[in-house]
Amino acid sequence: MTGSSLAIDVSKVHGERQFSQADDVAVEEPLEIQLSSASPGGAAAKSVSITMRTPGNDAELAVGFLFTEAIITNASQISDVTHCGAPAPDSGVRNVIRVQLQPDVEVDLGRLERHFYTTSSCGVCGKASLDALRVTGQRPLTQASTRFPRAAIVQLPERLRERQMVFSKTGGLHAAAAFTPDGEITVVREDVGRHNAVDKVIGALLMANRLPAHELGLLVSGRASFELMQKALVAGLPLLAAVGAPSSLAVTLAKEFDMTLIGFLRRGNFNIYSHAERLA
Amino acid sequence: MTGSSLAIDVSKVHGERQFSQADDVAVEEPLEIQLSSASPGGAAAKSVSITMRTPGNDAELAVGFLFTEAIITNASQISDVTHCGAPAPDSGVRNVIRVQLQPDVEVDLGRLERHFYTTSSCGVCGKASLDALRVTGQRPLTQASTRFPRAAIVQLPERLRERQMVFSKTGGLHAAAAFTPDGEITVVREDVGRHNAVDKVIGALLMANRLPAHELGLLVSGRASFELMQKALVAGLPLLAAVGAPSSLAVTLAKEFDMTLIGFLRRGNFNIYSHAERLA
Repeated sequence: MTGSSLAIDVSKVHGERQFSQADDVAVEEPLEIQLSSASPGGAAAKSVSITMRTPGNDAELAVGFLFTEAIITNASQISDVTHCGAPAPDSGVRNVIRVQLQPDVEVDLGRLERHFYTTSSCGVCGKASLDALRVTGQRPLTQASTRFPRAAIVQLPERLRERQMVFSKTGGLHAAAAFTPDGEITVVREDVGRHNAVDKVIGALLMANRLPAHELGLLVSGRASFELMQKALVAGLPLLAAVGAPSSLAVTLAKEFDMTLIGFLRRGNFNIYSHAERLA
Repeated sequence: MTGSSLAIDVSKVHGERQFSQADDVAVEEPLEIQLSSASPGGAAAKSVSITMRTPGNDAELAVGFLFTEAIITNASQISDVTHCGAPAPDSGVRNVIRVQLQPDVEVDLGRLERHFYTTSSCGVCGKASLDALRVTGQRPLTQASTRFPRAAIVQLPERLRERQMVFSKTGGLHAAAAFTPDGEITVVREDVGRHNAVDKVIGALLMANRLPAHELGLLVSGRASFELMQKALVAGLPLLAAVGAPSSLAVTLAKEFDMTLIGFLRRGNFNIYSHAERLA
């Protein structure tokens, strides 16, 4: 076991034949994200999320999650990120990560709670979801004027595939990547959860002090949902390119927040759902 | 707009050509699930979840969610399921659904809360996730002795595709289906969220008083995660067949709870990850 894939015995049925063979599957394990304060009275750690993820780049995942959920706003608020506790007895994977904040940082954990237990009366709608983004202070990415040549865009899927190390073994992982306007992939991360793959990329950019990333695009191996578009917006990524289809609310968000949304990026073709002017 | 797909203007880039065309995208809108009690003192509705879903079969989704999260245990606990509130002004979709319980039903909403905010100390692991299933009283499906002929299994993907009405228009939806041992698809549901598609199928089975469904299999158009396997277990479905790859923890759960897990069901072939004895 490498941590992100695991060899197991499988019965393969090929037409009339059936035979046993060792095969790799993508590892899925829960990660608990804890938040603690370095202030004298704030030693206790609070569990803020459990996500089913593929082990690897856990610190980026934790930091990216906290950032895209607007719990933290920049890397300087973090004093330390470490795994804690013993490895899980069954898998040997360490499944708890603790993000320690600087003493003067105050966070609103109620944000996460409201996420799950809204007190809204009847009337939640796509508009309410978009309004929530405005509340967190997100503005349209109008000032992100970088241009992305079409010739670079169409090369992305092949370049991503070359970098999907675990997918090539298991067929069971989503990938997300940040790329430059000339189509160079600078960060690529894999995970069983597509939101986790994106959080890992954004966490890596945050820790490298590269946010807001007005001059990068985000590539995802699957579909473009509202949630992924929202994460790109918070990170200042003005372009999201998906190999799969977008949802209606992803398109609405992209239009409203001046983001370029590309879908069905396959075999040299793609669709542009909003703000085509960034495609040079 | 049909409710589940929406026609929008898209710029299509095909090689050197670029042209505008109307295209359908899958609708994604938030659904708020509320729970209320019919008891004299329990009139207030409590919001228990917001999920991004494709409109359609909302009652099944709400009921299936409450059942697979072990908030309710059978259909007789429900007195009514209705949309409430006005349609959302932007989309015209009604995005709040209220499940009213019978007066004598007590539910433990703390379960949902613990889901998100565990109080566990360092040590969360795959084993803990499996243990949590035992705590909710889930037992291995050893008694589900139905056999599923291979010849029926290999026909499932094509039969599913024929029934994926919205996917064929948008390319943007997951599907889940219940099927009989002879490969007949009895319920099929689509959604932007794969867990929602499964909740809709299980909600439909629950409302038809067909749970536990020891004599049906569950087919999913994507990958098999721990979460989907867990939902199948709670519904008593002894076989899950995925067109995509399984995760490590899905395999572990299947082995431990005597469930048959099939993956990579494509082009007449498939892999069996656990309990091959149900394949006749």
